[in-house]
Amino acid sequence: MAVNPPRLEPPLPVPGFRVGTASCGVKSPELKGKRQDLALIVSDHPAHAAGVFTQNRFRAACVDFGQTTIERHGEDIRCIVANSGNANAGVGEMERVWSKQLIEAGARAAGCRPEQTLSASTGVIGEPFPIERIEAGMNDAAKTLAPDGWARAADAIRTTDTFPKWASMRIGDFTITGIAKGSGMIHPNMATMLAFVATDAPLTHAQLQPMLRRVADRSFNSISVAGDTSTNDTLYLLAGGIGQGRAPLAEREVRAFEDALLAVCQQLARLIVRDGEGVSKFVTIRVTGARSEAEARQIGRAIAVSPLVKTAFAGSDANWGRILCAIGNAGVEIDRGRVSLAADDVAIVENGQLREDYRDADGMAVFARPEFTLLVDLGLGEASATVWTGDLTHDYITINAEYRT
Amino acid sequence: MAVNPPRLEPPLPVPGFRVGTASCGVKSPELKGKRQDLALIVSDHPAHAAGVFTQNRFRAACVDFGQTTIERHGEDIRCIVANSGNANAGVGEMERVWSKQLIEAGARAAGCRPEQTLSASTGVIGEPFPIERIEAGMNDAAKTLAPDGWARAADAIRTTDTFPKWASMRIGDFTITGIAKGSGMIHPNMATMLAFVATDAPLTHAQLQPMLRRVADRSFNSISVAGDTSTNDTLYLLAGGIGQGRAPLAEREVRAFEDALLAVCQQLARLIVRDGEGVSKFVTIRVTGARSEAEARQIGRAIAVSPLVKTAFAGSDANWGRILCAIGNAGVEIDRGRVSLAADDVAIVENGQLREDYRDADGMAVFARPEFTLLVDLGLGEASATVWTGDLTHDYITINAEYRT
Repeated sequence: MAVNPPRLEPPLPVPGFRVGTASCGVKSPELKGKRQDLALIVSDHPAHAAGVFTQNRFRAACVDFGQTTIERHGEDIRCIVANSGNANAGVGEMERVWSKQLIEAGARAAGCRPEQTLSASTGVIGEPFPIERIEAGMNDAAKTLAPDGWARAADAIRTTDTFPKWASMRIGDFTITGIAKGSGMIHPNMATMLAFVATDAPLTHAQLQPMLRRVADRSFNSISVAGDTSTNDTLYLLAGGIGQGRAPLAEREVRAFEDALLAVCQQLARLIVRDGEGVSKFVTIRVTGARSEAEARQIGRAIAVSPLVKTAFAGSDANWGRILCAIGNAGVEIDRGRVSLAADDVAIVENGQLREDYRDADGMAVFARPEFTLLVDLGLGEASATVWTGDLTHDYITINAEYRT
Repeated sequence: MAVNPPRLEPPLPVPGFRVGTASCGVKSPELKGKRQDLALIVSDHPAHAAGVFTQNRFRAACVDFGQTTIERHGEDIRCIVANSGNANAGVGEMERVWSKQLIEAGARAAGCRPEQTLSASTGVIGEPFPIERIEAGMNDAAKTLAPDGWARAADAIRTTDTFPKWASMRIGDFTITGIAKGSGMIHPNMATMLAFVATDAPLTHAQLQPMLRRVADRSFNSISVAGDTSTNDTLYLLAGGIGQGRAPLAEREVRAFEDALLAVCQQLARLIVRDGEGVSKFVTIRVTGARSEAEARQIGRAIAVSPLVKTAFAGSDANWGRILCAIGNAGVEIDRGRVSLAADDVAIVENGQLREDYRDADGMAVFARPEFTLLVDLGLGEASATVWTGDLTHDYITINAEYRT
């Protein structure tokens, strides 16, 4: 029951990149041939890369390997290999062995070295990783490598996502295309978020890494479905332009590229929220007048994750008291006498007080919409941030509590 | 649908204290005479006092006044006046005026001065505070002042609590009695937690204040129902012994008193969890082997508030992966290779790995119980903490999302 999933234009091929998929029956052998569960993204030339990873202390081995590989070989990456159906997490000693085998198999299929290869896994945790089935299917993935494989790859990395997610953008002569999977939290999945973005723009690892962190903060780290991060969350960015022999971008062009990259990642992040488990409403929370962007985001996230606020969304209840309370709980120093709150075009609170002209029926009408925007102004400064979230519904409980019954 | 609410023995009177109640129709005039909504706790001698208050930045005026009064007059407190039915919060300029009027009315009824009087309010927010109705009922509260009024007061401070909550204990020659109300989060209430504890033990404000903060961390701050704190949360402790002419306790006796106070506050806190909205399971989370008590509590709270963990509780799903994930998200440096997890007598994870002898059916049997204990050992040190929580159920969504529909 995704909220207004948009009809996506086909993803744009990225010059220098080919994408292949295969059906390995990762989750169970019976699924082989029935659904794609392996994706291979190959850069024909060495790509500069960046990565942003889960902060969860139980993060999976593939995340450790990915981070190390980018740190050591971030100017010479050729391949991302990713599977759905099994997260290769929570399985102890074998996790690193299997993760390495996945990387090696991906490298062979891509025709590159393991240290040029990034990996990601998503799916059930705590179950043995079926590396043999994946190795057996890798050749199929290599055979299907093609510039237009992005949509199939977006499909292959899905777990409980109800639709595949991608975004593309042209910036000057260059293309950015990204795919993502969202927060499938059905047991025993762990809400893994994966996103892979490729571009033919010429940027260096040194430029990409801080850029990707900023962009992640403003996109994937600005959404909330259930408020938890998982063991396997991974965002990879590959930029092939320098390896393809192009001259590095000028500083002004780099800034324009970052804006485009942000747009792509925000589109992917919003698709994840629209497809969140049990989500029936898509709510944008815009916080302005903050002393810093980080504080604005902290306030937005506090609203976005509050179960009391999210159940009020579900109930179409313009419960401004719960929203103020969530703001007050954010751990940010505020002046309550300066806080204003509106929902779409309905002003509710001004300078910390309920507006005299506010009518509950007006607020309720906005909260009844499948999509609306909360506007919070702190009245303290010039910084702002936007956060996207969904509501907390009976369907969420059903999906997450009752899957085994 | 409280979880196994215990049959409470009547609360013990505290020598030197009298308690009265009244029915004022705070929430609406039609309720006058139908339910008690005003409580007056009077110490016949000046009491030393301590308080712990909500950290919410939108906290109500009564909280500001209470904190100031304790800071300035913490060795000379005579009265707590508290009402349910209206939180006197989110109402702007008048909040302080009405709060002051409540304190003045309480002081008159108790026969003391306003600066000897603490107040607390709970109930709807954003609605005008009916100070006239409360003032009209105050005389009734004064008339009913009696040593055995505690159970009636516990009843009067209820909002959506399904049963009144109190706890008593004898420590040496002294008595400790406390009452509490829990997390009524029905719109537009704000999950206000109130607790008032009185004792005839001779302790000073200087001893009580740090003691109450430690005790609050290990009791009321170690429970989670919905994870939010409210605008009005307040914990007051009055100790009348010194004002009654007793010699101060020796250091050893002070420590024994703190243990008893902790037991009383933990009992009240657990009652609040049992009565949490929509809660169908009562889960104790015991974290051991931590480097510090604060880190142990941080881990326990991360588990206790995770929607994914709480829905797993609701579904009787021994979803150890979600629990490890919550541990990993707690922001505490851990060594995942040392983490162990058990549920009651079923060992699940040892040194970061699923035990080979673990059978899912055994875990499921524990999670199907209405009460069980999760045991997390971090293997890093000697410190520990216990946290209590409930599950996240359809009833919670119904209560919080659909109240207006």
